[in-house]
Amino acid sequence: MEIIRSLQNAQIKSAIKLRDRRGRMQQQRTVIDGLREIRRALQAGFPIETMFVLPEAISGPETAFFEEILADTDDISILHVTHEVMEKLAFGQRVEGAVAVAKFPEKKLSDIVLPECPLVVVIEQVEKPGNVGAILRTMDAVGADLLISADGRTDLFNPNAIRASLGTIFSMPVVDATSEETIAFLQNNQFQIYAARVDGSVPYTTVDMKPATALVLGSEAHGLSDKWHQAGIVNIHLPMQGIADSLNVSTTAAVLLYESLRQRR
Amino acid sequence: MEIIRSLQNAQIKSAIKLRDRRGRMQQQRTVIDGLREIRRALQAGFPIETMFVLPEAISGPETAFFEEILADTDDISILHVTHEVMEKLAFGQRVEGAVAVAKFPEKKLSDIVLPECPLVVVIEQVEKPGNVGAILRTMDAVGADLLISADGRTDLFNPNAIRASLGTIFSMPVVDATSEETIAFLQNNQFQIYAARVDGSVPYTTVDMKPATALVLGSEAHGLSDKWHQAGIVNIHLPMQGIADSLNVSTTAAVLLYESLRQRR
Repeated sequence: MEIIRSLQNAQIKSAIKLRDRRGRMQQQRTVIDGLREIRRALQAGFPIETMFVLPEAISGPETAFFEEILADTDDISILHVTHEVMEKLAFGQRVEGAVAVAKFPEKKLSDIVLPECPLVVVIEQVEKPGNVGAILRTMDAVGADLLISADGRTDLFNPNAIRASLGTIFSMPVVDATSEETIAFLQNNQFQIYAARVDGSVPYTTVDMKPATALVLGSEAHGLSDKWHQAGIVNIHLPMQGIADSLNVSTTAAVLLYESLRQRR
Repeated sequence: MEIIRSLQNAQIKSAIKLRDRRGRMQQQRTVIDGLREIRRALQAGFPIETMFVLPEAISGPETAFFEEILADTDDISILHVTHEVMEKLAFGQRVEGAVAVAKFPEKKLSDIVLPECPLVVVIEQVEKPGNVGAILRTMDAVGADLLISADGRTDLFNPNAIRASLGTIFSMPVVDATSEETIAFLQNNQFQIYAARVDGSVPYTTVDMKPATALVLGSEAHGLSDKWHQAGIVNIHLPMQGIADSLNVSTTAAVLLYESLRQRR
């Protein structure tokens, strides 16, 4: 098999551009680092197009992973690269044996088919990809059904979000929408809408999360916008007894998600 | 007031060394970045010795903070520095108006005075300072009483732990000990000991966290050691329904801490 040795190779150059949000938006694609994440993407039917591979960096249990991936993937183009090229592709991340390029899934709110009593998380203007990934990881754990990024400030398929999600982002439905579209969607589908606010009037443990439930969380710096102040939306809070006045958004999400699981079991 | 302009100044050189664990261990001191954190440290009586200040970087609401700190602190040496020196002190962090040097508090398990029905968190061999800080932030929120770092792999007063804790680390009692000492301490004080394990047999919502309770969490990579497999210690788990097989340690801590608060209210 041919090995790509040049950083000037057109496919390498365009893959490197995917490390920047602008490149991802222009190409409507992202990069996935690491074999475990790539395997999860493939298992979930995520649209991977290309895999760049550094064979000598694949060893131990990863070899079997890799063979399995190879056997399964007729329609993915597999390209071998040198260590130097892989380093550039990994872009300051730990160099692993493989990096994949995948198209953004083109899912919209109107495509979503909801199960009975769905559990949905809405994040409005959340900025840090690490928080998006951590929230997805907990949603995966409790079996939540959908993440809506409302008026998003980061692209959902940011490589850091993928990494922090441990690849759970590929199996969890995720959708971008405006806050207005999100509210309309939730109201049309008879959701209980619980907006987490530091000054929310209702303790989170006293609301009923067994029916169709949407847990709504705001940005790290500013919390939820005023768009979520309206009739029918319940402002909930987590009790806080200490000197700090807020929790990390992914911590708040985890406490709310596990409370919904507790109520539902 | 004299302004320190030289990176060769002995106090600057020894403060810079505190960015490394080795420097902190040798000097038994740490650095605190930012006025908000410094204020929280002072309010909690944390032993700050020196404050390096860049007056032109202090503005807006921070000015009042700073005046307040100055008025309160007879026994702290305040040293003005240039922007260049502050950049070096901040060591890649955002340059803020102040950096402080503080002694490690010399608290041992035997110094701890427990309240009625205490709520204690034990972290064994946790490696990432960001996780330590995030756990402290949630402990502050639920009003927990003590963090024990058992067989610690990171120093509790790592500047990144301080930052991630938002300064709550200064008001929460924290202690280093071995796992053996920790188990003896908890048993002598009649704690219910709940060890969180992915394969724990008991769901966390079914145990009683109202009496004296210790929540025990293991390292990011390996979980809890076998030292915690013994009679009287209950292995609990968080239900997991997804493709990933574990949660972040600070997420697990948050879910357990808020469950204990729910039971206790």
